[in-house]
Amino acid sequence: MEATVASLAEHGWSGTTTTAVAHRAGVSRGAQLHHYPTRAALVVAAVQHLGAARIAEIREQAAALPTGAGRTVAVLDMLARLYTGPLFHAALELWVAARTDPELHAEVMPLEAAIGRESHRLTVELLGADETRPGVREAVQQTLDLIRGLGLADLLTDDGPRRRALLADWARHLDERLRAG
Amino acid sequence: MEATVASLAEHGWSGTTTTAVAHRAGVSRGAQLHHYPTRAALVVAAVQHLGAARIAEIREQAAALPTGAGRTVAVLDMLARLYTGPLFHAALELWVAARTDPELHAEVMPLEAAIGRESHRLTVELLGADETRPGVREAVQQTLDLIRGLGLADLLTDDGPRRRALLADWARHLDERLRAG
Repeated sequence: MEATVASLAEHGWSGTTTTAVAHRAGVSRGAQLHHYPTRAALVVAAVQHLGAARIAEIREQAAALPTGAGRTVAVLDMLARLYTGPLFHAALELWVAARTDPELHAEVMPLEAAIGRESHRLTVELLGADETRPGVREAVQQTLDLIRGLGLADLLTDDGPRRRALLADWARHLDERLRAG
Repeated sequence: MEATVASLAEHGWSGTTTTAVAHRAGVSRGAQLHHYPTRAALVVAAVQHLGAARIAEIREQAAALPTGAGRTVAVLDMLARLYTGPLFHAALELWVAARTDPELHAEVMPLEAAIGRESHRLTVELLGADETRPGVREAVQQTLDLIRGLGLADLLTDDGPRRRALLADWARHLDERLRAG
């Protein structure tokens, strides 16, 4: 699983062959084909597996964050790291390839939906957001869409300084909106 | 130029060969190679050319929009159409391929910077935003990053209803932020 995501992040979808991944992981092609009969099945399982692991990790790290002032911006920075790292790059390779590849599209759709649900749940939990209050659900969704857009802006150049300033500003507005309503 | 962007949008970067584009456009390979010696030069020129044309079109359409209530959401919808259409898909193919292709990376970097500047200028202009007021520049940047993130969310499924609701909500908050400060 790690070898698959690393290969997607380093070499992209077109550079990620099942043979290269088996070699990188030190497993036989027979064993690999037994578990993952197609390239699409292999990559979707890998992104799913590492996505779940990273979300669990973030939950643990966030448990150690202080509550009160500064928590929101710390949570946003934590989420932004997820959307600028190798796992996001691997997932982006799949999303973009799936747009023009019907077989991959069918496999990636349920994964995208699951990741969307899980990221939303994680964000609500880390921010302590009460989605029964008006406008809070929208604010959480906008936060994730904004962070996804910032991930895309970081693809070719280091957008870190601009991103951190924007997220610090957004954290102030977000706090107001989470408290209002 | 149109044939190149259409090919990227339909078949992706790996499915866009210079031969297929020449065939699609009905031009000779000789003429094509004379103007664009490499695939990277061809695709970057095409996205640049159509990007400038689309921005000019949006400027014209926006001139017809009413001022006052409803303008902000209409402007956001107009920008969101740009970030969910074939030109965004073509550009995304380039950004993602450039991440792992050094030759393409060198060609795409200045294009990405130019598109970023132009989209920002266009948004400031359409919203009538006064960036000398505190917080306004950040609000405009967040708006574009949000719309880029929404474009990515629309890649594999029609995210239109969710996007329109989120942008209507964003427009209300954005109006407050543009007036405040």
